[in-house]
Order: sequence, then structure tokens, then C-alpha cells
Amino acid sequence: PDWQILTIDGVQRLSRTYRFRNFAEALEFTNRVGALAETEGHHPAIVTAWGEVTVQWWTHKIKGLHRNDLIMAAKTDALLE
Amino acid sequence: PDWQILTIDGVQRLSRTYRFRNFAEALEFTNRVGALAETEGHHPAIVTAWGEVTVQWWTHKIKGLHRNDLIMAAKTDALLE
Repeated sequence: PDWQILTIDGVQRLSRTYRFRNFAEALEFTNRVGALAETEGHHPAIVTAWGEVTVQWWTHKIKGLHRNDLIMAAKTDALLE
Repeated sequence: PDWQILTIDGVQRLSRTYRFRNFAEALEFTNRVGALAETEGHHPAIVTAWGEVTVQWWTHKIKGLHRNDLIMAAKTDALLE
């Protein structure tokens, strides 16, 4: 499963970890996700580490998942296509 | 305390959360930390979210904290001076 649902502090988040060849490529993807977030006005948590990026989407206002989070997850995947 | 020690999966990490006015400023700091990491050849986990960045340093090879992690923590702070 590409995306999984995590519960952090009682709030469900959609989470996916993407693998990269090094830190620089991971950080480049983080910036692409960041640009998408700014465009859409909806912001995830993005964990950048050596060779991987974890993106977590949830809706702060409702403290959980909204249909929009699923759309953002799909758009995040599309950044790699 | 600015930096705290967290234990994640049995491994100690030095962790600090920095606050920013918005997502763009947070992401800009993430990139500065990323550039520092590339220069030093030592890479943290960086959690970027709206208005905040959490930086976590630890040494994979020893699965814990090395003196170098404390130096990297200090250098991370210095990026904001």
C-alpha cells in the first residue's frame, strides 16, 4: 500500500514515504511538494531525510481526513510521474 | 530548552522545533538546513510544516548521539543568527 493512515495525537493522517537516491533528490521532492502545497493552499507535514521523504496530509480544521486530503495525496503522487 | 533528546525506535535524537510565520519561511529554513547538511556530509531528519520546522540530529552508524550531532545542532541554530 502506497498510502497508509496513521493516527498521531488522536488525529488521522494519510502518510506515504517516497525513496530517493540521496539527500539532494529527497530535498528537491520536498520543494516540489511545498510548491504544490502553496498552490493549493493546503499544507502537509513533510519529513525530509537521507534518501527519503514522508508526506502526511490531514485537515487541521476538522482534526482528521477530508476528501481534499485524498486529492492532495493523488496530486503528490503525480509529481513523480 | 531549545534542544531536547527524543528516543525514536530505541535511538536517541537531538530535536528542536523552530517557528516561522508561514509555510514558505519554514520551507526556506528547511533548505538552509539541507545545504548545511550537504556541506558537512551529515544529514538530519527535517520535518517541514506550516509555520514550523523540526530538525533531528543523530548518527546512524552508532544508532545514537555523537559529539558531531551536538556540533550540527549548534550550526543549525547559527543559521538563524
